[in-house]
Amino acid sequence: MSIRNSNRQWVLRKRPTGEVSEGDLELVETPKPEPGPGEMLIRTIYLSLDPTNRIWMSDMDQYMPPVEIGDVMRGGTLGVVETSNVDGFDAGDIVVPGLGGWQDYTVSDGTGVSKIPADLGIPLDAFMSVLGATGMTAYFGLLDIGDPKPGETVVVSAAAGAVGSTVGQIAKIKGCRVVGLAGSDEKCKWVVDELGFDACINYKKENVLEALRRECPNGIDVDFENVGGEILDAILTLINENARIALCGLISTYNAEGDVPGPYMFRNILMKRVRVEGFIIIDYLDRFPEGQLEMGGWLAEGKLKYRTDIVDGLETAPTALKRLFTGENIGKLLVRVSDEP
Amino acid sequence: MSIRNSNRQWVLRKRPTGEVSEGDLELVETPKPEPGPGEMLIRTIYLSLDPTNRIWMSDMDQYMPPVEIGDVMRGGTLGVVETSNVDGFDAGDIVVPGLGGWQDYTVSDGTGVSKIPADLGIPLDAFMSVLGATGMTAYFGLLDIGDPKPGETVVVSAAAGAVGSTVGQIAKIKGCRVVGLAGSDEKCKWVVDELGFDACINYKKENVLEALRRECPNGIDVDFENVGGEILDAILTLINENARIALCGLISTYNAEGDVPGPYMFRNILMKRVRVEGFIIIDYLDRFPEGQLEMGGWLAEGKLKYRTDIVDGLETAPTALKRLFTGENIGKLLVRVSDEP
Repeated sequence: MSIRNSNRQWVLRKRPTGEVSEGDLELVETPKPEPGPGEMLIRTIYLSLDPTNRIWMSDMDQYMPPVEIGDVMRGGTLGVVETSNVDGFDAGDIVVPGLGGWQDYTVSDGTGVSKIPADLGIPLDAFMSVLGATGMTAYFGLLDIGDPKPGETVVVSAAAGAVGSTVGQIAKIKGCRVVGLAGSDEKCKWVVDELGFDACINYKKENVLEALRRECPNGIDVDFENVGGEILDAILTLINENARIALCGLISTYNAEGDVPGPYMFRNILMKRVRVEGFIIIDYLDRFPEGQLEMGGWLAEGKLKYRTDIVDGLETAPTALKRLFTGENIGKLLVRVSDEP
Repeated sequence: MSIRNSNRQWVLRKRPTGEVSEGDLELVETPKPEPGPGEMLIRTIYLSLDPTNRIWMSDMDQYMPPVEIGDVMRGGTLGVVETSNVDGFDAGDIVVPGLGGWQDYTVSDGTGVSKIPADLGIPLDAFMSVLGATGMTAYFGLLDIGDPKPGETVVVSAAAGAVGSTVGQIAKIKGCRVVGLAGSDEKCKWVVDELGFDACINYKKENVLEALRRECPNGIDVDFENVGGEILDAILTLINENARIALCGLISTYNAEGDVPGPYMFRNILMKRVRVEGFIIIDYLDRFPEGQLEMGGWLAEGKLKYRTDIVDGLETAPTALKRLFTGENIGKLLVRVSDEP
């Protein structure tokens, strides 16, 4: 892709009703920004698409302020510094500016920007997946909240997703039985054959409760929950005493309009003395180096695999986002906004 | 009441549909049992009636096996030893045999039976309420699971109940703002004027969400949950980040037939990074002495008050139990099965 002399931005025009549709976001073309004194210009290379983007578009009570109507859509990015007036950053540096947004360029004063060690030979997309916020979500959510013990049974919904596929591998490293749930035979085959899950249930083909009963003969000790709805209900039905549920996402409900009932088996949280804990990865930002170090080691040893699903062009972002909700994608979904240097 | 020469027993005849009704339990008269070698005969003085009795009558998945059809109904009791062939127990000892059941007499080999220090001048009904399983439920549930910090806001549903009224007082001792929910003005007046709660909402008269918003201007940090349903939903709406929910009971659902939806605001467990933890007091049996020591101290200092609601006669037990679900009783509900010595 050629480097652009303008800055395209996806602007939120109205809050989606149900799934994101034409007109909710508008692609506007603005002049390429000029960094002032103490600022740098970052050209976006990768834009991360995540289920939580849909939450930010809504005005429900949430963990960060929603994106305001008329604002550039929020999103995680990785980019390259084009020009820098910031001490410690030079043209050519590969950086993660945090939430750079759905646009070609970001101007930053360096606050919260981390430099990527591009000389380690690690592909850049790893920093947007297994070593980025996605991988850290899997790492801290499973180990800190799920607290799995060797021999326990861990269930992961959205198992072929960016987070779920990583969670299952970490749980295997920790000596657990790992059962995934995914929406196609292809996904199930990938997480079992390539990633080493013990089993994977295609929830579109099988009765989830029956299949979980078969694959979790000793019940469920840890649930890394990405989905909610009927899948969470089936898990709660088979949950063991003193089990832990790391509540990471509820993707089945993000497009819902109106009231969504909580799990019908909510009472089992009481009956089985279960601990359910919601978490957001931004609470772990200061511990990222700890997670990246251990995950980097597993990656180098070949114990941890990852897959990115990269679509080309900023203009495709809204269409590509939908794939997270229809179950079309496998692995971490990224938009390539411009080419790697 | 005169001491009986037979042993009346309430036997479970069928599992209730909705609320307990005539014919679900039957009062049968059996011979007064004779303790064999290594056994003692305990005459029941007090029988504890608790919301969980209704769970035991059902065959839902629960934390103990349900009471089987044809078995004597399970219940906590306090009694006096009439004759003893067990070392360490003598006639006249006041004892808590654990779950002695809904009957006039229990035979025991001493396993799990604890002797009550009747010479301390503490009324016996305290051992069936504030110093018994009820008080320990409040103590460990609030302090271990709820983990309240000084200045935080603690909400307690079923605030005039045996557990809730104790929870609120402990939270006050710990320096929290305490807001109760109860079903009558009389109950609310009692917990505020007598027990020192900061506020109490009559959920039958007020819109719970609006009233909670008024009484919890800084949101809710700890919820000691006894009720579930709409009250829990209102609490989740106003819950603070990193709040804790000690899930002790879901009395609003125990009489329900069919599927009960979980809280509609379930998603706030995720959005607000809330920890929800179910607990059952039997998991804390080995820590009872620790709780009884501290609670006994507060009782002696006058910091902790309790109230028992005592109905007379074993024959009234099923009728009295209903009062827990209709909200008629205040404080710990006990049946006086025979007089104190």
